[in-house]
Amino acid sequence: MDSWVDGQPADVLSLRDRGLAYGDGLFETIAVRDGVPVLLERHLQRLGLGCQRLGLDVDKVALSAELQAYAQQLGQGVMKLIVTRGDSQRGYAATPSASTRRILQGSPPAAYPSTHAEQGVSLFPCATRLAEQPLLAGLKHLNRLEQVMARAEWGGPEHAEGLMLDTSGRVIEGVFSNLFLVCNGVLITPDLSRCGVAGVMRAELLFQAQSQGIATQITDVDLEQLYRADEVFVCNSVYGVWPVRACGSARWSTGPLTRKLQTLARALLDV
Amino acid sequence: MDSWVDGQPADVLSLRDRGLAYGDGLFETIAVRDGVPVLLERHLQRLGLGCQRLGLDVDKVALSAELQAYAQQLGQGVMKLIVTRGDSQRGYAATPSASTRRILQGSPPAAYPSTHAEQGVSLFPCATRLAEQPLLAGLKHLNRLEQVMARAEWGGPEHAEGLMLDTSGRVIEGVFSNLFLVCNGVLITPDLSRCGVAGVMRAELLFQAQSQGIATQITDVDLEQLYRADEVFVCNSVYGVWPVRACGSARWSTGPLTRKLQTLARALLDV
Repeated sequence: MDSWVDGQPADVLSLRDRGLAYGDGLFETIAVRDGVPVLLERHLQRLGLGCQRLGLDVDKVALSAELQAYAQQLGQGVMKLIVTRGDSQRGYAATPSASTRRILQGSPPAAYPSTHAEQGVSLFPCATRLAEQPLLAGLKHLNRLEQVMARAEWGGPEHAEGLMLDTSGRVIEGVFSNLFLVCNGVLITPDLSRCGVAGVMRAELLFQAQSQGIATQITDVDLEQLYRADEVFVCNSVYGVWPVRACGSARWSTGPLTRKLQTLARALLDV
Repeated sequence: MDSWVDGQPADVLSLRDRGLAYGDGLFETIAVRDGVPVLLERHLQRLGLGCQRLGLDVDKVALSAELQAYAQQLGQGVMKLIVTRGDSQRGYAATPSASTRRILQGSPPAAYPSTHAEQGVSLFPCATRLAEQPLLAGLKHLNRLEQVMARAEWGGPEHAEGLMLDTSGRVIEGVFSNLFLVCNGVLITPDLSRCGVAGVMRAELLFQAQSQGIATQITDVDLEQLYRADEVFVCNSVYGVWPVRACGSARWSTGPLTRKLQTLARALLDV
């Protein structure tokens, strides 16, 4: 399906766009099922937080309508939204009058092997660390060189995802996923106040678990705690939940809480 | 003057470019005088280091020819080169067959008030800190949200530049400049192995100072040392050298070493 720029079909972008020049913008990757964007409210919420942090002014009502219309035309697949600060001349200072730009791109449904969800995945232990930058932590901004470098560390199908630590050695997330642990019945996910992307599926799973009376904890996690965990899984808003069976020399079995949350994600994503 | 994409006039870019999606690329801002790119070898050297670090494959010979030709047409001004990893589909993994993309943009000569160079500038003390990421330190990559946020902290003409510290409180650089101190006759500039952009003018001034027997030091600098310095100046490859006369409550006079290096930079840049 054609991409849209500010609601109009387009396949090119101004060379003066600040998304290109500085990564000055945000993005969201949204699953679309039967013409409906999945977890749209949560995506818009995170985008809103990002806009606030970066000082970007986006018309949420118009954007929401555009997303609905694009999803309807896409039908099934993945819709990627990029919001940039628009054009400017050379230099970091933004042009005050510049309006933000909305870019929508469609892809077919993600085609991951079904074994990822059924039998679990192995995580590649990435050497690339995440820098600690509280001002940008949690946001899905366009400065993603760390993820690009981490993803380039492995090839081939043996590892479906990578594990990323921060520069202090804390366990943070996957390259394109968030990470959860289950320890003594408590659902734990790393604190993302210094770095990492606060995923929409992560937020939804935390909410669902809390709604069902499952104890949850957002906290710093180290490798030792990860290795000792009873269950480990990764998640995102496109594929849902993948149990993690291995990372380096560590091994885990797929446990009941992982399966329970995977079923919830499957119901949302219809995968 | 028209922009070029891969050597051809163009004012738009593919929406699938990874420079937009992830800031997956590098840039150089090069002064052009009488059709000649100033300090071109140093720019190409830093770009080469960046390409090596990011695993980008750029034809340096072809690029160099393109830069020369573009500069010749531009005559006087500033030439900005952006190199990206080219197009790819959704996802952080690069398409192995994708070739890097070269973008050239021209601007008129930078129009800063002459008082900046003559009487010195005041630095705004930025609250935005630079995250410590040794893998990307020194490179002029496209992930520049920290600079965008820092530059947005002040408006108006009172401050010509901002001072940026890292998240540990070390003094690193300006928003679009490198920083030098003179302490007891030694020319000092902050170590950039954890963060910061290793500027081409910084390298040239260090080289020139060393050639003239001036003692130089690349080291960690804290605020106290900055405040105690005999001279402070900022530099970049477009404007040359600006003495720093104030930052917060600190005041400095313009000293002889600053003027000496400013004269050298002026000769190079013809400003």
